[in-house]
Amino acid sequence: MKVCVVGAGAIGSLFAAHLAKVTEVAVLTRREEHARALNEHGLRVSGRHDFTARLTAATAAFDLPDFGLGIIATKATGLEAAAGSLEQRFPNATIMTVQNGLGAEDVVRRHGEWPLVSAVTFMSGTKHSDTHVEYILDTATWLGPYGDTPFERVQEIAGLLVDSGLRAEALPDLRPAQWSKLIFNATVNGVSALTGLPHDPHFAAEGDVSDLGHLVRELVEEGKRVAAAAGVDLRDDPWEMNVLATKRGSAHYPSMLEDVEAQRPTEVELINGALVREAERCDVPAPLHTALYRLVKAREASYA
Amino acid sequence: MKVCVVGAGAIGSLFAAHLAKVTEVAVLTRREEHARALNEHGLRVSGRHDFTARLTAATAAFDLPDFGLGIIATKATGLEAAAGSLEQRFPNATIMTVQNGLGAEDVVRRHGEWPLVSAVTFMSGTKHSDTHVEYILDTATWLGPYGDTPFERVQEIAGLLVDSGLRAEALPDLRPAQWSKLIFNATVNGVSALTGLPHDPHFAAEGDVSDLGHLVRELVEEGKRVAAAAGVDLRDDPWEMNVLATKRGSAHYPSMLEDVEAQRPTEVELINGALVREAERCDVPAPLHTALYRLVKAREASYA
Repeated sequence: MKVCVVGAGAIGSLFAAHLAKVTEVAVLTRREEHARALNEHGLRVSGRHDFTARLTAATAAFDLPDFGLGIIATKATGLEAAAGSLEQRFPNATIMTVQNGLGAEDVVRRHGEWPLVSAVTFMSGTKHSDTHVEYILDTATWLGPYGDTPFERVQEIAGLLVDSGLRAEALPDLRPAQWSKLIFNATVNGVSALTGLPHDPHFAAEGDVSDLGHLVRELVEEGKRVAAAAGVDLRDDPWEMNVLATKRGSAHYPSMLEDVEAQRPTEVELINGALVREAERCDVPAPLHTALYRLVKAREASYA
Repeated sequence: MKVCVVGAGAIGSLFAAHLAKVTEVAVLTRREEHARALNEHGLRVSGRHDFTARLTAATAAFDLPDFGLGIIATKATGLEAAAGSLEQRFPNATIMTVQNGLGAEDVVRRHGEWPLVSAVTFMSGTKHSDTHVEYILDTATWLGPYGDTPFERVQEIAGLLVDSGLRAEALPDLRPAQWSKLIFNATVNGVSALTGLPHDPHFAAEGDVSDLGHLVRELVEEGKRVAAAAGVDLRDDPWEMNVLATKRGSAHYPSMLEDVEAQRPTEVELINGALVREAERCDVPAPLHTALYRLVKAREASYA
């Protein structure tokens, strides 16, 4: 199964490099010099794994060979353009989305009838250059069918990822995992973007009444009530995910904090916005997540 | 009535310069060069009024002549030190506080038995240098008795302020005005500090569901429920204060936003913290103000 990875940030680079060890991989990037560098030097992985992969890169879908699996690994903010670039082509492809939040599949669906696979990934990396990514957390990617996609197709893709050296698991229903990460991300990314704190022990502190952990816990509880109303049994408790993550050695710098510090658009719509819209759809109050959503949107408005 | 103004930021400078036209004024500042400049050059007022006042400045209470009215015009964060510097001295003085929020009088009371006058001021100015303040909004200062202070004393002080060219009004009960400003400040300062937005039309926008005005309105409503439970009839509706202020030509830059941008301690405890504690005392839920309080505290924690 030939693969095309759209978007070569940290996550896209980790998928592309690993998969290139077991199949033919093309990468679709935005910048010419990025594509040129990948074609010339390959893509180096350091950290948990150590190798350099050879792959093909291009900046236009027109230049891509046909493929059986497309992985859209852009940020949520680049998703619409990425899906648009594949429109009316690659009829034999299955497309997999790995964006944070909810709703990425719907965006892709508007651009074509490909079978879709939903994924959430917990692996992490740091991109040191266009041709070098450090593999940091080797936690799993979970995949599930979206719409009519047969589960066997999902298992096949998960198998390919495992063969390539990544951790992956096919789940008949991805929503329990997707929602655990949604609630975790809406809470941690939102609070981090507004306070300037990386995901550090403040997020689990519940000593004094002014401590941030109280708010984090209330946001998680609110999110869990929305999940319950939406009929989703969470796979992991987002509060436990939070406590565990803050106990790691160095505090993670959430992407939404990086975005507001660089005055870039954030993924707030697919993360916090999606949770707020689900709450409304299910008629469950979510005042704290709604507040967070409006505050982050206002923070984006302050760039202008 | 001789006057001592403690703290010569914009508000303290406006009080000191105006009062120096009608009585003897001493200013207590933190920095030596500030005191020296005031003693040498006087204090210039521009904007609404235009004059230069002569006054005495010192950096130690020890060097101050006796006075009948002390105005503590530091920020909330400098209040403890300011009150401490007057301790066990000036037995004939009445002390007036003009800090934002609630609880300034209690801090001063811990340092002496002076009769106390509460004040909230709506005037504003910009300090261009240690010896030059621009008088921008010539709105009133409202004064009320605190504890056993006779109302006549409050009227006398209001009269002195009016004689000096400032707008002032003595009120038998300051709480309706104090709480209107408290709810306004807790909302606008908190939201501004977190979003980076000055107090601009976003704060009154209620078109889209993601618009910030919805949150501002909910924060105001929550604050009004706390005021009602505390037995306070608000003087002005904080939502109307908000709408009116955002319609002025140039957006006001709230001090709490200036503080977080300069990574200084904010006045969050006497403003948002005070409102949250009042809600708890009156057993009224205030989830949104509690969230704002914890987020601003966390923003302060991010400086380290």
